[in-house]
Amino acid sequence: MIIIEGPAGNGIGRSIAAEMGVEFLECKHRLFPDGESEIELDGSVSGKDVLLVQTMYPNQDKRFVELLLLANAAKKQGAKSIGAVIPYLAYAREDKKFAGKENAVSINIILETLNSAGITHLVTIAPHKAEPLSSFKGDVKIADAITPLAQEVKNHVSDAFVLAPDKGALDIARQFAGILGCDYTNIDKRRDRTTGDVEMIKAPQADMRDKEVIIVDDMISAGSTTTMAAAFAKSNGAKRIIAAAVHLIMADDAYNKIRNAGVEELFGTNTIPYHNCHSVDISNAIAQIIRDRWSGPRRIIKTN
Amino acid sequence: MIIIEGPAGNGIGRSIAAEMGVEFLECKHRLFPDGESEIELDGSVSGKDVLLVQTMYPNQDKRFVELLLLANAAKKQGAKSIGAVIPYLAYAREDKKFAGKENAVSINIILETLNSAGITHLVTIAPHKAEPLSSFKGDVKIADAITPLAQEVKNHVSDAFVLAPDKGALDIARQFAGILGCDYTNIDKRRDRTTGDVEMIKAPQADMRDKEVIIVDDMISAGSTTTMAAAFAKSNGAKRIIAAAVHLIMADDAYNKIRNAGVEELFGTNTIPYHNCHSVDISNAIAQIIRDRWSGPRRIIKTN
Repeated sequence: MIIIEGPAGNGIGRSIAAEMGVEFLECKHRLFPDGESEIELDGSVSGKDVLLVQTMYPNQDKRFVELLLLANAAKKQGAKSIGAVIPYLAYAREDKKFAGKENAVSINIILETLNSAGITHLVTIAPHKAEPLSSFKGDVKIADAITPLAQEVKNHVSDAFVLAPDKGALDIARQFAGILGCDYTNIDKRRDRTTGDVEMIKAPQADMRDKEVIIVDDMISAGSTTTMAAAFAKSNGAKRIIAAAVHLIMADDAYNKIRNAGVEELFGTNTIPYHNCHSVDISNAIAQIIRDRWSGPRRIIKTN
Repeated sequence: MIIIEGPAGNGIGRSIAAEMGVEFLECKHRLFPDGESEIELDGSVSGKDVLLVQTMYPNQDKRFVELLLLANAAKKQGAKSIGAVIPYLAYAREDKKFAGKENAVSINIILETLNSAGITHLVTIAPHKAEPLSSFKGDVKIADAITPLAQEVKNHVSDAFVLAPDKGALDIARQFAGILGCDYTNIDKRRDRTTGDVEMIKAPQADMRDKEVIIVDDMISAGSTTTMAAAFAKSNGAKRIIAAAVHLIMADDAYNKIRNAGVEELFGTNTIPYHNCHSVDISNAIAQIIRDRWSGPRRIIKTN
């Protein structure tokens, strides 16, 4: 196997390769004055199982095109197989319900395009929903980022309470609470489809007075959901409010928004390059899943 | 047939539909705070021949992804066939020679991806090179933008001389000169692959003293080539210098760069939305080629 880090690999490719003890290649890339990307593979991948590492933010479209260019270069050079590690998989947020049965769900065309570019293995982390990933024709693995994230948060709290800001984050909250050994609950929220505004439609009955409340989610985008949850935690007497999410998109003024709502500390991972937080490296979690569950019979690869 | 204008249709879709007297639909689109695009088709295309109109600048990657989303929506709604009018086709500039035989040429993966999204007909204008378009599996038509562009320039000059800034623009210069009824020649240039700098390696022997010199090209990107040609025309006694190109990308400080080199007037087309020029609408040229040469037997569609 050879691991190739794309322009948006965020160092994860190099770490996985080191962790697994496999060959590593950094791609050559440049941007022309008009914004066109150019990708070159500066080493042969002919006959090899290639694993491309490229996250999809910022920005989704550029990163997606770069990934296609990378896959195409590997294919043209005669790679035996092409897999992609996409730590943050963009365009996976849209809901079938909202898109309407007659319209396309964005993630489908993204995955179909990766297939058509020759990618047959996909590893990602905390996709907003797992179900749409079934439209990818090939092997899909989801690495667990919640465990390392929760373990890091555990080092910083003593009397925790985990709060899911909506039902969608309930599984994450359950996993978090299990690791922290504390209680958890969830808010019911509603998002205005036009304005993006978020409102709480049902408050949970839970005692979070004098607790360190950890608002957990798969991602923080514009921060509206976290802000709503923080306001709720504050009004319920939380001693300290922490936000923890795998993908820190932090669009617009998300950071100041959640800070102003009372979030004192922010935890995230390096699926997206964002530094204004405690950032957890998820390379090991990815290496783990590749080692354990990569296609074909299980293989034992020795590491130091 | 139904013509659907994408978010970057630049009004061309609506004009073609009016010119051809066929059904027209504007797509609904929005941008989420994190930059993700969403596309909806607000009308049924089931059983219809769909023609999507979407240019690819600015910016290439976003426009490309939007086009994929559009094609996917049309496919999911049961379109009979899907064609795409891409007035400016990005990623078509890279040269096989430069890409190296072992590396991918970007345009190939772009075209393959359009195919895999269900697009089987392609109409474009002044592609940098026509040859790579052969990797598109389906019907490819190239509309002629040089004729309307040269006709517009003709209204503004009386004693013209056409100058191609490199060999690649020689065909365009020949066509331009034919319409203007004047002489033409070309410079031989060399571009530094790393810096992007352009230098003249062979000056043409031509009398352009007291002439209105029109520097013609398929596109102006960062303006280095036009700047070099303008300097040459100036030093050879041109009375007035005009630049005319189909695709005005005008990256970086291209406008000021060519102005400072002596270009007094700029002509372009609406393949790219750029307004600091005499802009020629190429909708008719596209409608013409669709009417004349669309796949299957020729059809006569009455227009007013």
